[in-house]
Amino acid sequence: MRKAIFLIQSPDSKGILANVTGFFYGRGYNILRCQQHTDSFEKRFFMRIELDTDDMQTSRRALEEEFAALASELGLEWSCHWSDYRTRMAILVSKASHCLFDLLSRHLEGELDADIPLIISNHPDLEGVADQFRIPFYCFPMSEGKEKQEEKVKDILRRFDIDLVVLARYMQILSPSFTDEWQGRIINIHHAFLPAFQGANPYRRAYERGVKMIGATAHYASEDLDQGPIIEQDTIRVNHELTPEGLKEVGKDCEKRVLASAVKAHLEHRVIIYRNRTVVFSVER
Amino acid sequence: MRKAIFLIQSPDSKGILANVTGFFYGRGYNILRCQQHTDSFEKRFFMRIELDTDDMQTSRRALEEEFAALASELGLEWSCHWSDYRTRMAILVSKASHCLFDLLSRHLEGELDADIPLIISNHPDLEGVADQFRIPFYCFPMSEGKEKQEEKVKDILRRFDIDLVVLARYMQILSPSFTDEWQGRIINIHHAFLPAFQGANPYRRAYERGVKMIGATAHYASEDLDQGPIIEQDTIRVNHELTPEGLKEVGKDCEKRVLASAVKAHLEHRVIIYRNRTVVFSVER
Amino acid sequence: MRKAIFLIQSPDSKGILANVTGFFYGRGYNILRCQQHTDSFEKRFFMRIELDTDDMQTSRRALEEEFAALASELGLEWSCHWSDYRTRMAILVSKASHCLFDLLSRHLEGELDADIPLIISNHPDLEGVADQFRIPFYCFPMSEGKEKQEEKVKDILRRFDIDLVVLARYMQILSPSFTDEWQGRIINIHHAFLPAFQGANPYRRAYERGVKMIGATAHYASEDLDQGPIIEQDTIRVNHELTPEGLKEVGKDCEKRVLASAVKAHLEHRVIIYRNRTVVFSVER
Amino acid sequence: MRKAIFLIQSPDSKGILANVTGFFYGRGYNILRCQQHTDSFEKRFFMRIELDTDDMQTSRRALEEEFAALASELGLEWSCHWSDYRTRMAILVSKASHCLFDLLSRHLEGELDADIPLIISNHPDLEGVADQFRIPFYCFPMSEGKEKQEEKVKDILRRFDIDLVVLARYMQILSPSFTDEWQGRIINIHHAFLPAFQGANPYRRAYERGVKMIGATAHYASEDLDQGPIIEQDTIRVNHELTPEGLKEVGKDCEKRVLASAVKAHLEHRVIIYRNRTVVFSVER
Repeated sequence: MRKAIFLIQSPDSKGILANVTGFFYGRGYNILRCQQHTDSFEKRFFMRIELDTDDMQTSRRALEEEFAALASELGLEWSCHWSDYRTRMAILVSKASHCLFDLLSRHLEGELDADIPLIISNHPDLEGVADQFRIPFYCFPMSEGKEKQEEKVKDILRRFDIDLVVLARYMQILSPSFTDEWQGRIINIHHAFLPAFQGANPYRRAYERGVKMIGATAHYASEDLDQGPIIEQDTIRVNHELTPEGLKEVGKDCEKRVLASAVKAHLEHRVIIYRNRTVVFSVER
Repeated sequence: MRKAIFLIQSPDSKGILANVTGFFYGRGYNILRCQQHTDSFEKRFFMRIELDTDDMQTSRRALEEEFAALASELGLEWSCHWSDYRTRMAILVSKASHCLFDLLSRHLEGELDADIPLIISNHPDLEGVADQFRIPFYCFPMSEGKEKQEEKVKDILRRFDIDLVVLARYMQILSPSFTDEWQGRIINIHHAFLPAFQGANPYRRAYERGVKMIGATAHYASEDLDQGPIIEQDTIRVNHELTPEGLKEVGKDCEKRVLASAVKAHLEHRVIIYRNRTVVFSVER
Repeated sequence: MRKAIFLIQSPDSKGILANVTGFFYGRGYNILRCQQHTDSFEKRFFMRIELDTDDMQTSRRALEEEFAALASELGLEWSCHWSDYRTRMAILVSKASHCLFDLLSRHLEGELDADIPLIISNHPDLEGVADQFRIPFYCFPMSEGKEKQEEKVKDILRRFDIDLVVLARYMQILSPSFTDEWQGRIINIHHAFLPAFQGANPYRRAYERGVKMIGATAHYASEDLDQGPIIEQDTIRVNHELTPEGLKEVGKDCEKRVLASAVKAHLEHRVIIYRNRTVVFSVER
Repeated sequence: MRKAIFLIQSPDSKGILANVTGFFYGRGYNILRCQQHTDSFEKRFFMRIELDTDDMQTSRRALEEEFAALASELGLEWSCHWSDYRTRMAILVSKASHCLFDLLSRHLEGELDADIPLIISNHPDLEGVADQFRIPFYCFPMSEGKEKQEEKVKDILRRFDIDLVVLARYMQILSPSFTDEWQGRIINIHHAFLPAFQGANPYRRAYERGVKMIGATAHYASEDLDQGPIIEQDTIRVNHELTPEGLKEVGKDCEKRVLASAVKAHLEHRVIIYRNRTVVFSVER
């Protein structure tokens, strides 16, 4: 079934729900799923609506244009996504392989609705993993200078028509111009329960602070390191039996799970960003 | 704010959402929250809709009658609940006090939107707890015979105009005529992760089976013991260090949490029963 | 059964375990439970040993003196606790009642091996709860000045021979002289997953940061606010549906559970502090 | 560092701990880690002791023989494992690939202290995955008859000198003679929280029962299907939004995690079986 997914947000006001559902119903669409959320604190309305478009009588462009008219009338910000378009996703890595293995296995399992045309790294170490999954691997070492390296990364992302960049333990900080250009389209995994232990060596610092749980956070990358909108987090119980190295080992599972879950939410068009927060609609399967 | 909450279910068909939201919007109601779920396996549609009725221009009865007409046209089963009516809830206990303490504390904390006009028991043991919270305590011992005892319980529930019966570790099996009369209005807590360890002594059996997690289940009581529709479940990790007695101790926290959560969902009109399953809508706070 | 519990720590070295167990075995004691931990990162050895002392042939003092000799030879820091001494625990509160209800209910349930001779507050609000559980309530308002108020608190703790102070959402910062005098004997509950959201209004800040989990932390109070050794932490999954107020409501359950668990670990002599971290030995029940 | 690990169990009696630690200490071994557990319900003592054997002055055989003498005197059942011997592990699969991917990725990551000389299947489907990780793949279809097929599996396990068989969603029931021969050396993953939903189609049955959590169980295979000693379990929260197919998808993560955790515990010699239960000692890392 080909579907259209509309993501909508606006200041809260009466009647948006009835108007939007009426709009689609009046045009004969079957609404497969409709989720709304009103943030009563921010007075903001959020909505995700999924349509069956198999029998649509008009062009996609026409539907989008008609909806644009309604949206402009009601003051909605919105985007429309078509289920038969596969997101093109690039994975950036450095030396740690656990998140890469996890994403590639899930991809082969059919869990991720995306194409992965390439893997990019600043180190050659993970080329073997890319080979194993037959995905082209591009290595741009930092030796050529940070700026130049980043330019090459940007170029290749453009050349491959990439929609989404996943930083799967890529140990480089992106420049503001990069995060700016790719706003809302870069997902990073941080190996701590943000905002605790921002920055480097979170497991070591977790050990020193003597925490009884560790965590991981997947978020959209923003100019300020580890400050972007959070998509998903999880924690695991730990105890005094783990050294910093042990925490790092144990944390891997949490990182994999959290990153995969955030990537899925993005690929399934279930995330709306507002200010520095996200609405993540649940999934029906 | 006075609210009306409609709980709706029907076979899945096109346009219910647009029709229902249109119905309320057309009459000038502000829809505070609208949640739907389509069970694609059962082809069944579920909906919860919460209206601001502070400015309603008509009587409650009139609104319900008009909605009944729409419902009949669309083939909807439905119920309507008004937020200014406080559910009258009776708690039935035997000897274990942990769930009772928990419910009464939450009630005093304002977490449960209900009145608790009485506590009923088949043992005198917990009268002190009832006294502590100044709630009338009625003790109907089993010595007078199961049938007679149950009759007395039924009588007093009627006399106190009770809407919801909570079995907070009440160690008696109710007769089919009781569960029948009170269908969908008795919540029981079972001290195991159903359907594992139905029936008696679940902690002992959990120990013997050597499980690594134990759990608790809150469900509507039905004729068949521990077979009714599940509202909430949770589990806790355990290990070889716990004896049957230890599991029982550790399990208490899980039982309290699960029962309270199920009772809240019921009181907030977030549960719809279909066959032997429940749809439990999430809560915005 | 009367038991003795020895808590031991020392720099790691060969043979401590064999020497200590040999010491008790040689004197005819049955070792009920023996737990050790070597922190390979800090090169530090920790041990908890539980003895059956029902048939002891000597005085308690004699046993402690003999052990002191061994400890001095092996370079051990240690303490000894006798199971028939009930810890005297004071609870300090302000206005929030959920942790107080929880601790008092658990106390009545027999979960906490302690006497609670008094509750202290800087507000009169919770006197009713204290009355309900028939525990003397002392109110020392801040109006008389912070220093004077704290002096009164200290006095009464001394007068009642208190061993352990539990800050159950006591909204005052203790002076360094207080935390110093009571080092390792004050347990505080912080309503966030430390080190995230130290200080005031953690739920509001959690909302603003858009986290997907919230947590609670029980720790020994130290001079630096929210910096003391952590005993227990837990987290709960939240989502965009919760306002700051909603997070606060939902977080209560986590706070109660974490505080109770930390207090139990302390009362059962399962906690050893080293630097700013704790070893918390597990419990067999 | 080369280590020896002793796993010990016996009826509970005074002095075992002191005797065993004294035995090793007297021979100059450094005890790296010593864990005991007394099951007070079964009156049974369990112990795991890890020695540094880098400087051992005697042969391994001599140490084992000396220990055997002590064990016979004290009435201990025991086994000894040497850290420089790598367990040889075979993985059996059918068509589902998620557990296989997970185990092989973890193996490459260095998480599993084992060699995996072969993968066996009754279907050709997963040959590609085996190839990807360069592990020999043997396909023995059921078409040749169950008995004959099993004989071939047994033969090849012997030929490859296999120590541990992991059933990673192998959809065949093993014959009693097989489970008998391999007792305590076959780990199976069941896709439900046992003892709930034993047997076929657990996710479908979980849907029908309307559970709010699903789980997975790793256990040693025994003659009775899904009845063997449980090593590890975990659960995940689900809700009405998941169809049977959705539960199956969501459950995969739980299955992978639980199986990997059980396999690790076995490979690290942290599991002792007693009757139908396991003691699983925790890990220091």
